[in-house]
Amino acid sequence: MAEKKKIGILGASGYTGAELVRLLLRHPRVEIVVLTADRRAGQLMGDVFPQFAPYDLPRLMTIDAVDWAKAKLDLVFCALPHATTQKVLKDLLAKAPETKVVDLSADFRLEDPASYAKWYGHDHHALELQREAVYGLSEIYRRDIRKARLVANPGCYTTCAQLPLIPLLKAKAIESDEIVVDAKSGMTGAGRSAKEEMLFSEVSEGFHAYGVGQHRHMSELDQEFSKAAGKEVVVSFTPHLVPMNRGIFSTIYVRGRRGKTAQDLHDILVKQYEKEPFVYVLPFGKMPQSRHVRGSNMTFIGVTADRIAGRAIIISTLDNLSKGASGQAVQNMNIMLGFNEGAGTDQPAMFP
Amino acid sequence: MAEKKKIGILGASGYTGAELVRLLLRHPRVEIVVLTADRRAGQLMGDVFPQFAPYDLPRLMTIDAVDWAKAKLDLVFCALPHATTQKVLKDLLAKAPETKVVDLSADFRLEDPASYAKWYGHDHHALELQREAVYGLSEIYRRDIRKARLVANPGCYTTCAQLPLIPLLKAKAIESDEIVVDAKSGMTGAGRSAKEEMLFSEVSEGFHAYGVGQHRHMSELDQEFSKAAGKEVVVSFTPHLVPMNRGIFSTIYVRGRRGKTAQDLHDILVKQYEKEPFVYVLPFGKMPQSRHVRGSNMTFIGVTADRIAGRAIIISTLDNLSKGASGQAVQNMNIMLGFNEGAGTDQPAMFP
Amino acid sequence: MAEKKKIGILGASGYTGAELVRLLLRHPRVEIVVLTADRRAGQLMGDVFPQFAPYDLPRLMTIDAVDWAKAKLDLVFCALPHATTQKVLKDLLAKAPETKVVDLSADFRLEDPASYAKWYGHDHHALELQREAVYGLSEIYRRDIRKARLVANPGCYTTCAQLPLIPLLKAKAIESDEIVVDAKSGMTGAGRSAKEEMLFSEVSEGFHAYGVGQHRHMSELDQEFSKAAGKEVVVSFTPHLVPMNRGIFSTIYVRGRRGKTAQDLHDILVKQYEKEPFVYVLPFGKMPQSRHVRGSNMTFIGVTADRIAGRAIIISTLDNLSKGASGQAVQNMNIMLGFNEGAGTDQPAMFP
Amino acid sequence: MAEKKKIGILGASGYTGAELVRLLLRHPRVEIVVLTADRRAGQLMGDVFPQFAPYDLPRLMTIDAVDWAKAKLDLVFCALPHATTQKVLKDLLAKAPETKVVDLSADFRLEDPASYAKWYGHDHHALELQREAVYGLSEIYRRDIRKARLVANPGCYTTCAQLPLIPLLKAKAIESDEIVVDAKSGMTGAGRSAKEEMLFSEVSEGFHAYGVGQHRHMSELDQEFSKAAGKEVVVSFTPHLVPMNRGIFSTIYVRGRRGKTAQDLHDILVKQYEKEPFVYVLPFGKMPQSRHVRGSNMTFIGVTADRIAGRAIIISTLDNLSKGASGQAVQNMNIMLGFNEGAGTDQPAMFP
Repeated sequence: MAEKKKIGILGASGYTGAELVRLLLRHPRVEIVVLTADRRAGQLMGDVFPQFAPYDLPRLMTIDAVDWAKAKLDLVFCALPHATTQKVLKDLLAKAPETKVVDLSADFRLEDPASYAKWYGHDHHALELQREAVYGLSEIYRRDIRKARLVANPGCYTTCAQLPLIPLLKAKAIESDEIVVDAKSGMTGAGRSAKEEMLFSEVSEGFHAYGVGQHRHMSELDQEFSKAAGKEVVVSFTPHLVPMNRGIFSTIYVRGRRGKTAQDLHDILVKQYEKEPFVYVLPFGKMPQSRHVRGSNMTFIGVTADRIAGRAIIISTLDNLSKGASGQAVQNMNIMLGFNEGAGTDQPAMFP
Repeated sequence: MAEKKKIGILGASGYTGAELVRLLLRHPRVEIVVLTADRRAGQLMGDVFPQFAPYDLPRLMTIDAVDWAKAKLDLVFCALPHATTQKVLKDLLAKAPETKVVDLSADFRLEDPASYAKWYGHDHHALELQREAVYGLSEIYRRDIRKARLVANPGCYTTCAQLPLIPLLKAKAIESDEIVVDAKSGMTGAGRSAKEEMLFSEVSEGFHAYGVGQHRHMSELDQEFSKAAGKEVVVSFTPHLVPMNRGIFSTIYVRGRRGKTAQDLHDILVKQYEKEPFVYVLPFGKMPQSRHVRGSNMTFIGVTADRIAGRAIIISTLDNLSKGASGQAVQNMNIMLGFNEGAGTDQPAMFP
Repeated sequence: MAEKKKIGILGASGYTGAELVRLLLRHPRVEIVVLTADRRAGQLMGDVFPQFAPYDLPRLMTIDAVDWAKAKLDLVFCALPHATTQKVLKDLLAKAPETKVVDLSADFRLEDPASYAKWYGHDHHALELQREAVYGLSEIYRRDIRKARLVANPGCYTTCAQLPLIPLLKAKAIESDEIVVDAKSGMTGAGRSAKEEMLFSEVSEGFHAYGVGQHRHMSELDQEFSKAAGKEVVVSFTPHLVPMNRGIFSTIYVRGRRGKTAQDLHDILVKQYEKEPFVYVLPFGKMPQSRHVRGSNMTFIGVTADRIAGRAIIISTLDNLSKGASGQAVQNMNIMLGFNEGAGTDQPAMFP
Repeated sequence: MAEKKKIGILGASGYTGAELVRLLLRHPRVEIVVLTADRRAGQLMGDVFPQFAPYDLPRLMTIDAVDWAKAKLDLVFCALPHATTQKVLKDLLAKAPETKVVDLSADFRLEDPASYAKWYGHDHHALELQREAVYGLSEIYRRDIRKARLVANPGCYTTCAQLPLIPLLKAKAIESDEIVVDAKSGMTGAGRSAKEEMLFSEVSEGFHAYGVGQHRHMSELDQEFSKAAGKEVVVSFTPHLVPMNRGIFSTIYVRGRRGKTAQDLHDILVKQYEKEPFVYVLPFGKMPQSRHVRGSNMTFIGVTADRIAGRAIIISTLDNLSKGASGQAVQNMNIMLGFNEGAGTDQPAMFP
């Protein structure tokens, strides 16, 4: 059996970090050798996430304490806040240029520095890495990912909206100026930070929207949709929070172009994804539920006709921590390291 | 002090029945004297809803056991399934024509018998009552309700969508052929029937849509929107289920007509509702949460500009059991019997 | 109609503050004239709890900005953290000695200064007020409350355990050294502070105990149980957190003394509470659910025989924000000001 | 690589059936070749549990349609209702006596036919199989399970209570007549049947007990505890329902015998389980949460001293669908078929 590849996880005390550990513990070809979490350094992973107490894992350390050159990591997952990420990866890749990186932050997703500066409020500090980075929507950019050193793992909302819409925009099958994406997310999408508005009592038994008209994820959608359509595309996008832990659920309203029917759109998606292990297009007219992808790396997509002639409703759903973050990150690692794409990620959803 | 009016509730073992009892127990001008629930006849209300065990309420009986002429009820709330309702009310109003009725079913909401037959799969059996019925959206039809004998209380989804959209359609301020209503409901909207898909384990920790492209409530929206706009209006409408008990939350995407901005739309709504006790329009750009109307008769409405020029996003939310059903029913009763409109219904929301 | 009494609420930005406002807005005899919240001073109550946006309420201010002498408040509800409370009330009662106070903190519940110091880690700073304070378990100390200036409102766990156990201990009907109280609480019991362990994603879909063997509420139980039994009583008590907003639910295991059966215990409780508006003892063998008291001031108590001869299981449940805090506080205010005890508090539970 | 063993699952449309499929799909040594579900016969597993739509699984069939002799199944998981199970397994083992069986019902757990008849209301119809059956608490009966043809998989409540208590009773370290087990379960423990009391709206935002004083699982506890203690043991046991999907959480109150302290009890448990892959005893004084075993086959156990001298509080938690049912069933299959005990079952918990 081949030697296991050495893996590091930066930012292991957050939810995406925990999900990476969950998936990688069952991966036959890799070994977690570095776990960082600055504020929890010195503690065990089981102190931060008790479910890992029975497992043998490296003790948490600060990022500064890692000797990149000596560690000789094969691949690093970076789950740090934006901006910090740029600084850390610049340093890491300077000291250990052979290390591959899957970055889960938003830092390397936007190709246009001006767009980054607009949405994040400051200049990008690692433009040379930005130029090198490959956008990690696995099903669309698999070839580039295979050769990449630095992969910018897509956001959860954006993965969920792109998988159904990119093939349709590429095929010029829908009107590009009349797309509405009404998106709903579980609470883990907001991360593990102690904020009043994320307390159980503030969130349960209710529903609300946030960032209406101005959510940062829009820049990522704009970039990828415009590339796919070959012209500028700007969609209406509203994110909401659902009192559940996991799940992104996008209800997408489109109008077919040049007589394209909902059935035509369905055909395009079926054809695009029939061989993909992690995208499943339901039979025409059937709609997916977020709970049926929970804990798995799957995206489920449904298409039906709206009662308004020429319009279709598309629903796409995935688990924000898995295909929307850590699952796709492991999928990308598998592509980058030449493993079977399903290694570690092919866990069936957990329902109920 | 004036004598209390005699009230009957038909179908008291469902959620809207319980909500009526909750509200009426605190109403200073009425007394519940008849409670029916065919399958639970002979039992106490406290057997069916233990929260009422400490209260003195009439024992549940079958509808057939009620002697309408003798009971001399001032007003009856009818919370029965559709079709059954027609039969029961025809009989009741034949025997006790002075009784007023607020019907919470869908039976008398559609003016056009053909539309009823299309969506409900059978002919209407009480067309003369249908012609008499007044549609009970309190803020819009208050004058007619005041004189009505039979009020058809609107549905929860439709009340939530109509309160923001009807003034805008009447003012011809929005394009009527490009409206998307993405609606989300708590589970009580599905009633108290034992169905597998409504079990806790099937519903919690997940999100899904249902009746995509073909929900019955559409007929009610079509009717009222078309009346308001003075021409046929058909909207895209998708209902979803949220793992919460109470709440309707509608995210509405519209395009302003003839240069009307989101701010203009907000102005129209503020003006329309500034004196209404149960509709509150938030300051421009602020968006409401369903939990902040829970248990109250309020509708909260927010308006903001979409980032796409000319488009606006409107969010409207109410409690499906209160303003979406029993609360508005009591509000209508108050209008019909000449009481203060807030009697029994002016309970502040319960959050958390 | 008599003039309305002037009420102040100190600490209005927490959950018990909001619940007080909810209840008092419907109280016919009082008017809220002062609302404090130091960190939110200058804001509207509707900024802190949007459900109150439509209501006319005084703007939030700092405690220091209140001129107690000038304000001439009839009664103040104090919902501040422990220790702070002592300081604030000492000052308030020095400047406006005629003001009555219902304190919702733990500061004046313990008669023994040594016990206070042991459980709270510092000396008590207002011992003269402590000596004056009346413990506010309404059903047990009603006579003293009527004459009190300062009432120490009991905790939620302790109210729930005391209402069934105190009559049984007084009657010497149960063994006092073999009592197990297994208590479960909704999340609002933990307050509105932004802590990681109270985030939705940390709390939903799970169950846990906390403070096992060492919870502060034990001191209050020890004091009252020992008084009732006429000898030292120490019970096993374990608090747990349930993924729900509201509710305390205590499963209590006892052994009958001198042949007393479960049925005998039930008889004692029925007799004790048959005329009480806010304590309802279910028929023997029936057990209550927390959801059926949600939002109400009721305590529901059930008693049944254990299958082990001589042992009984008692279940007691209430809403921690209402009877467990603000509801009982309003009940105490009603007693202190000579109002009907049910004014403002006699709202039926909201289920579902 | 060895040929895969052929597995059947009877009753695949319930939650334990789905959990078996989830676990077995990742098991390297087995293949699911028969799936039965009488009411859903002819359908795909993906029609009944959409999460399995992307997987290649046999179509659902009726039990009667299975030709046991021809199917040559190596092992069958039986997840049928009690009583039915007896009939089906009698038939199966008559026709295919070489087949091994893990039965998840209660039918073969009770050694004493009189006890079965008392708790289940009818005579046992397969007493010869009952005599053959081995009780499947893996950690305690591993040796017997290895040689068994028919294993009676324990219940979820009982596994959770037995794992901590059996070693303590065997060691005579606790008083056997003063044990209180206050147990809490997630909703999936109640199965997938459409009952009003299990609807989301009936269950969320509340907490309740059921079967107080008379739950069927008690017979299983009595049997195993009495065996372990070498004398009759009857415990106080109260089951409750928590608004969550998965998890059993038992708070257990015990008194040490002959001076045994909580620390002594902890030592016994640590020693008993230190080499077990699926039982983890936390450091003394630390208590587990149900969410940290969700989706895994782990049981987490914590022990601490009660403040009452000589008493201890023990908390034990597991996932009712996994270690409490299907996970332990797969663990037992692994023991019976000579596989690595962790094959398919060693998935880390999914939190959040």
